[in-house]
Amino acid sequence: MILAVDIGGTKLAAGLVDPADGRIAARAATPTPRTTDAEGVFAALVGLLDELGPDRVAAEACGIGTGGPMTAAGETVTPVHIPAWREFPLRRRMAEATGLPVFVDNDAKAVALAEGWVGAAAGVNAYIGMVVSTGIGGGIVLDGRLLDGRAGNAGHIGHVVVEPGGRVCFCGGRGCLEGEASGRAIEAVTGRPAAEAGPEVVTRTGTLVGRAVASVANLLDLGLAVVAGSVALGFGAPFFAAAQAELDALARLDFSRGARIRPAALGGDAPLVGAAGVALHRLGRLPCCR
Amino acid sequence: MILAVDIGGTKLAAGLVDPADGRIAARAATPTPRTTDAEGVFAALVGLLDELGPDRVAAEACGIGTGGPMTAAGETVTPVHIPAWREFPLRRRMAEATGLPVFVDNDAKAVALAEGWVGAAAGVNAYIGMVVSTGIGGGIVLDGRLLDGRAGNAGHIGHVVVEPGGRVCFCGGRGCLEGEASGRAIEAVTGRPAAEAGPEVVTRTGTLVGRAVASVANLLDLGLAVVAGSVALGFGAPFFAAAQAELDALARLDFSRGARIRPAALGGDAPLVGAAGVALHRLGRLPCCR
Repeated sequence: MILAVDIGGTKLAAGLVDPADGRIAARAATPTPRTTDAEGVFAALVGLLDELGPDRVAAEACGIGTGGPMTAAGETVTPVHIPAWREFPLRRRMAEATGLPVFVDNDAKAVALAEGWVGAAAGVNAYIGMVVSTGIGGGIVLDGRLLDGRAGNAGHIGHVVVEPGGRVCFCGGRGCLEGEASGRAIEAVTGRPAAEAGPEVVTRTGTLVGRAVASVANLLDLGLAVVAGSVALGFGAPFFAAAQAELDALARLDFSRGARIRPAALGGDAPLVGAAGVALHRLGRLPCCR
Repeated sequence: MILAVDIGGTKLAAGLVDPADGRIAARAATPTPRTTDAEGVFAALVGLLDELGPDRVAAEACGIGTGGPMTAAGETVTPVHIPAWREFPLRRRMAEATGLPVFVDNDAKAVALAEGWVGAAAGVNAYIGMVVSTGIGGGIVLDGRLLDGRAGNAGHIGHVVVEPGGRVCFCGGRGCLEGEASGRAIEAVTGRPAAEAGPEVVTRTGTLVGRAVASVANLLDLGLAVVAGSVALGFGAPFFAAAQAELDALARLDFSRGARIRPAALGGDAPLVGAAGVALHRLGRLPCCR
């Protein structure tokens, strides 16, 4: 079994995942403590592990998906939505707490791995996995490899420019996908949660996601975007239709024509399956990608 | 020595390149025949090889950079600017003509390899090399590897969307970098060659290139774009200043802030040095990237 951990701004989750098929054999979750005490958050996480039952002792490695940014190989993490952790040495602390080899990566890259392993991108060696939620992130598999970039942040599709001169983004740029189409942006513009958005907002959000995916498909010669996240999956079919229409209009090269946007297959399981994928990937044991 | 070949719409060039340091020991070039006869173009290419002198027999492999698109591993090529070659089996034909192992890749990827090997990206393991010329292409090295994509076309930054709803691009999309900022686009808009463009066009072209690079830097966690090509290098300092200003404004994430745009270092030598790089890369002998 692989001990899988998902560090989110809303909840902390842990599970035991079968490395043979990605099945989640046990799981536990707790709200992320609202505190400025780094140790308080870590204690809540360690407390979760005891809820996983006796199979926990059979875990051979631990994989963690976490909100970024992080330094190379996830040695320290500074999750945007967990103010208590600024450059928190998550990998080392979990290794000390569990006695296991621990591997940390960005949560959106973990979701991309999950979908490539046992989800909507299974068998595909060039795709982007995206999360369109409060923020917008992603992970890219190209040439059968998960892309890392200098500090492990490759896949950050949320900051591809889709509306030049548009809204100031949370990053300080302008017209980024995340600044225009994330749950947080939708709430800032409409004054209501994304779940209450009207059809025009749903269509526009889909269009902007499709535009960013077109840029990525043209840039990287990849043909599939798998989209997870509460905003995208909550919006459903009209969102995906608008995204596909924009992608069809803008991915017109011989090699990018026919690129597809598909909903993620794993739903709420993706973060834990992906966290296990992070460990298996670094151990060279994930069949879908090196 | 490596036999290096550059297939362009204007000229065909060949050279002998030292695999130790990228030095060009001999070179020859001829205008690309204006013909619809595929064999006529190939005969002109083979004729060039005889002009390289006696060292040619010492060549151990042949690398080719060519305009795209191509099928996987360059098995067949359909260069946009050479109408005589539609799915021309360039790799096999050159192997038969020379008796050497032959490796084919996109010319912009070749330029990216050249700049990483002995140019402005030497020692950098995450960068994009770009050519801003009649068209706009590129090649990406990430995690120390040259990205290929499904059919070898990764790096095509010319079709990142920079002006949504903008001009119809040559690819059929809208607002692509190539449709707004290439030499061909500039000529279509202004009615004059790019070399005669006024300062407003120079600044706008730089801004759009900077915008596309910002999307790539944010997406892939890379910090350097090396820009070659007659349009960019002809425009010079005002172009690079405008590009850097836009990049500074839009690459604002912890990991992308400080990303740089630099002129290519190899100038007119880049295509042949890069063609040799294509062969060395596929042979696993290019120190800069796997």
